[in-house]
Amino acid sequence: MNQNIVKRIEAIRDFMAQRHLDAIYISGTDPHMSEYLCTHWKTREFVTGFTGSFGEVVITRESAGLWTDTRYFLQAGEELEGTGITMHKLRVPDAIPVPEWLMLNMREGARLGLDPVSLPLSTFRQIMDALSKMMVDIIFVSDMLDEVWTDRPALPEKPVFELPLDITGKSRTEKLTTISTMAREKGASATIVSALDDLAWTFNLRGSDIDYNPVFMGYAIIGNGETRLFTHTATIDGQAIEALVNEGVILKPYHEFYNYLEQLGGQTIYLDPSTANTALWQAAFKHNNVVEGMSIPTILKAAKNETELSGFRMAMHQDGCAMVNFLFWLKHAVQSETIDEYTVSRKLKEFRAMQPGFVGESFSPIVGYREHGAIVHLSVDQQNALPLKPEGILLFDSGGQYKSGTTDITRTVALGYVTDNQKRDFTLVLKGMINLTLARFPAGTRGMHLDVLARNALWQQGLNYGHGTGHGVGHFLNVHEGPASIRQELNSYPIAPGMVFSNEPGLYRPGLYGIRTENMMVCVEKEVTEFGTFYGFDTLTLCPIDTRLVVNAMLTHEEKEWLNGYHEKVRTELKEGLDPEVREFLFELTMPV
Amino acid sequence: MNQNIVKRIEAIRDFMAQRHLDAIYISGTDPHMSEYLCTHWKTREFVTGFTGSFGEVVITRESAGLWTDTRYFLQAGEELEGTGITMHKLRVPDAIPVPEWLMLNMREGARLGLDPVSLPLSTFRQIMDALSKMMVDIIFVSDMLDEVWTDRPALPEKPVFELPLDITGKSRTEKLTTISTMAREKGASATIVSALDDLAWTFNLRGSDIDYNPVFMGYAIIGNGETRLFTHTATIDGQAIEALVNEGVILKPYHEFYNYLEQLGGQTIYLDPSTANTALWQAAFKHNNVVEGMSIPTILKAAKNETELSGFRMAMHQDGCAMVNFLFWLKHAVQSETIDEYTVSRKLKEFRAMQPGFVGESFSPIVGYREHGAIVHLSVDQQNALPLKPEGILLFDSGGQYKSGTTDITRTVALGYVTDNQKRDFTLVLKGMINLTLARFPAGTRGMHLDVLARNALWQQGLNYGHGTGHGVGHFLNVHEGPASIRQELNSYPIAPGMVFSNEPGLYRPGLYGIRTENMMVCVEKEVTEFGTFYGFDTLTLCPIDTRLVVNAMLTHEEKEWLNGYHEKVRTELKEGLDPEVREFLFELTMPV
Repeated sequence: MNQNIVKRIEAIRDFMAQRHLDAIYISGTDPHMSEYLCTHWKTREFVTGFTGSFGEVVITRESAGLWTDTRYFLQAGEELEGTGITMHKLRVPDAIPVPEWLMLNMREGARLGLDPVSLPLSTFRQIMDALSKMMVDIIFVSDMLDEVWTDRPALPEKPVFELPLDITGKSRTEKLTTISTMAREKGASATIVSALDDLAWTFNLRGSDIDYNPVFMGYAIIGNGETRLFTHTATIDGQAIEALVNEGVILKPYHEFYNYLEQLGGQTIYLDPSTANTALWQAAFKHNNVVEGMSIPTILKAAKNETELSGFRMAMHQDGCAMVNFLFWLKHAVQSETIDEYTVSRKLKEFRAMQPGFVGESFSPIVGYREHGAIVHLSVDQQNALPLKPEGILLFDSGGQYKSGTTDITRTVALGYVTDNQKRDFTLVLKGMINLTLARFPAGTRGMHLDVLARNALWQQGLNYGHGTGHGVGHFLNVHEGPASIRQELNSYPIAPGMVFSNEPGLYRPGLYGIRTENMMVCVEKEVTEFGTFYGFDTLTLCPIDTRLVVNAMLTHEEKEWLNGYHEKVRTELKEGLDPEVREFLFELTMPV
Repeated sequence: MNQNIVKRIEAIRDFMAQRHLDAIYISGTDPHMSEYLCTHWKTREFVTGFTGSFGEVVITRESAGLWTDTRYFLQAGEELEGTGITMHKLRVPDAIPVPEWLMLNMREGARLGLDPVSLPLSTFRQIMDALSKMMVDIIFVSDMLDEVWTDRPALPEKPVFELPLDITGKSRTEKLTTISTMAREKGASATIVSALDDLAWTFNLRGSDIDYNPVFMGYAIIGNGETRLFTHTATIDGQAIEALVNEGVILKPYHEFYNYLEQLGGQTIYLDPSTANTALWQAAFKHNNVVEGMSIPTILKAAKNETELSGFRMAMHQDGCAMVNFLFWLKHAVQSETIDEYTVSRKLKEFRAMQPGFVGESFSPIVGYREHGAIVHLSVDQQNALPLKPEGILLFDSGGQYKSGTTDITRTVALGYVTDNQKRDFTLVLKGMINLTLARFPAGTRGMHLDVLARNALWQQGLNYGHGTGHGVGHFLNVHEGPASIRQELNSYPIAPGMVFSNEPGLYRPGLYGIRTENMMVCVEKEVTEFGTFYGFDTLTLCPIDTRLVVNAMLTHEEKEWLNGYHEKVRTELKEGLDPEVREFLFELTMPV
């Protein structure tokens, strides 16, 4: 493997020599700024062998570097061994991000190669800013890996199907009209949709071009009374094609997008600099004005409509039944069978797959027993899976894509004897989860204002967790969906009714165990007083929380009331969907504390 | 009065006609971006009659407008009556700030007059941005009010004195060396100090050019091995002059600053765009490079040193004794004398003035009985003062400047019978104050993350308050000192040990009563764990909280423990400074709940 990487970097340097490039930068993303990538766009992995979900690469004539963050220091360290590639740490004090590193390491007159199609516009601007005072030439090379990556997989063209109105709650025509109107209000004659989840939401279509994300490769231009969708039309379901054409949507091949955009003229085009790539921006800018702001479908899809929320509730029912069936299996299997973390991850999928409407997993499950639970971004395979014993605690974070909604749930359960410290830690995390659930807050409040509610019980004991508390979740779409977020980072987007969040505080004791409890919840209006409109959260997830790990005396009256009320609701809602013996088991799990 | 204003605006329009100006903008600040102003710089009040602390003015040939925020809508409405000046509301939905208003209301080719000396650089940039697409000419007119304001007060030149090392904890030479070093680290050869509190802190000097703020008018340029202080040198205390000269500080008249700066060349000058005025920036930019960032003395003075903190504690002792003496007087006076809000405000000063080291008040006291308590920015005078009766609740917010530190305290007390609703409201506010006091948080936490701790108990009941929770406080300096703040607004400056804050949640029932409880506190390191360094707050203020207003059953065990612990500390620390009968009274006030 490492020998492969060494050879690839040599080949890249040959290419650089031919083109007289002193350095090249590889963003590691795709043209749509997707978090998950299709194999065609796994450039970072191809070049470095690193399989984490975030990393930027710079190769010069003499050096090769991978920039990644705290989540991946361990993994990158292992995967880069023997490749000659240096790891550069981000999100640490004194971190030197790529633009700054380039500024410090490139000579005046040097040439830097960039692929504009996979280069986020924001990164391009940072690099330009950093190098603005130097005489570095920026060279756009779209074919950077073509000569090196000879067996590069083709772009995916998987089937695309339509979602009916009783799942989306809003017709495509209505969405397209709203998007055009909002673009006009922003002073634009047209807008470009390039993020794949925005595209799927806008057109009420879903695909499977990317693992775990039910999206398809494409772009759209909406405005001036027409809508153009650039995608692999050949694999769109026949009825969907007919509907699209009847509604006047102009269908074009995926690869024609840039040519079309470059020919467009005299427009004012609205685009989102955080998801547009540099080639897209250049093409739009060629003969048009550009207005920038948050993508309109991103804004619109953030607050789920009533139909989408009913769908979420249906998906939660199915997911909850799958989880209780899984817990029932786990209880017996850990006593009587030889199972490990990998078995658990397969079983989670198996139990979900029995539910109607199940399409696939929403991400690769994280299953961590004992010390593995403390590795936040663990990926378990058959080789490194720990065997489970009837003792200690097991953390599992998993989710499903159902046609009616997307789920994401983490539970931490006792497999047998657990220590008082483990119970104490579990209870502190649970208090945070409950206190965020119980939040009431005035309109205008941001996620960064509420994050502390989930951390306060831990902070009081000098404990903390190194990840955000909550992310937005798409409706039968990506499990990570912006702009919704509950975390400390600056985010000026206010929380509003209909926004669906995860709520997942945790605690990780390196070498010992990890704890995380995650429910999904939706923001709802709670009351209007003379002091304004107040929002709160309704929990969506339906699955017992392991009360064997709860120290009752550490809970306040309100926290206990919430926990018992939640368990009563879980019992009432799930009991009809379970076999008698599993139902009995559910009753046990949901006894009041 | 209104006739005066009308005449003044006519005179300004005459001036505008002479200079062919279509509009003028008056920022209402001074060249140092001071919050409080000397009479010479009360331009907003002179032009409009409005006496609030924030407001911008635009006068055109046909219209005159005052822009102010929520705090002042009532007051501005009253004060502008009959002047022909329109109030424009800021911080409301659909607010149109001055730059946008100018863009909408100025014709192409029009001429806008601005006084660069009193124009914040940030405002200048906003106006330039807004007007960039129009052909509006910006005309700098430094003498805008000279012809109109014939009896304009001269600039203040009050005595300036030196603070000894046992109060400042750091010598002037040490501070100047640190400032030069930090400027060099930021790539600059020199830095300009123009904010008056920064200047006073840097030179260990205090004055009284501005009411309530112990500062003096001046500028400094520090760097390249020399320090130039431009101020009214004639009124600096003789020993201080000698010390300054001995240490190599070059003293220059205040008015020579701009000439000197314009002649300076070939430097890289570090300045703070949030406190620099436009004339300063232009002069600095003339023959030099400019690097921008937060003012270095602002950064340095934010975290108080041990000596300053001891001083604060001494000031708190004196202030606490004054407050308890005041409370003792109030208890008896409300029963036996005819007193009103104005009497209370005078008495607060009187009792403070008896304390050693008292220099003056740190701001004009806010005293609100019954419905007056609900007016957050109330200014009480003899005419509108409500008489006090032995019933209902009284809010008073006041503070002192002592040579060892600055104080700011709000208490809300029962003057006799109080309703259950008042007690409930008081207790909710108190819970917020206590929960923020008890916060533990990792290094890197910002004020905007903690603000919710003070609001949560209120939010849970659909209640809220419309002001920030905490501001930084200077050390024998301005009672409002940045960048420290605990409020919802984005503020990326992290809370660090030594930073002194107010903690002042409140609740205001319009037409009924207002409640606010305010202590000052200092951030301290609490513990280092494997999860990082955790900070917390130590309370500085020493004064009883009225337990007659507390509903015990609403407090958690921890909150009750804090309250009783606080009262025990207040009793122990203050008892020696009080007369026997007042000491008895203190014992009563600090009984455990």
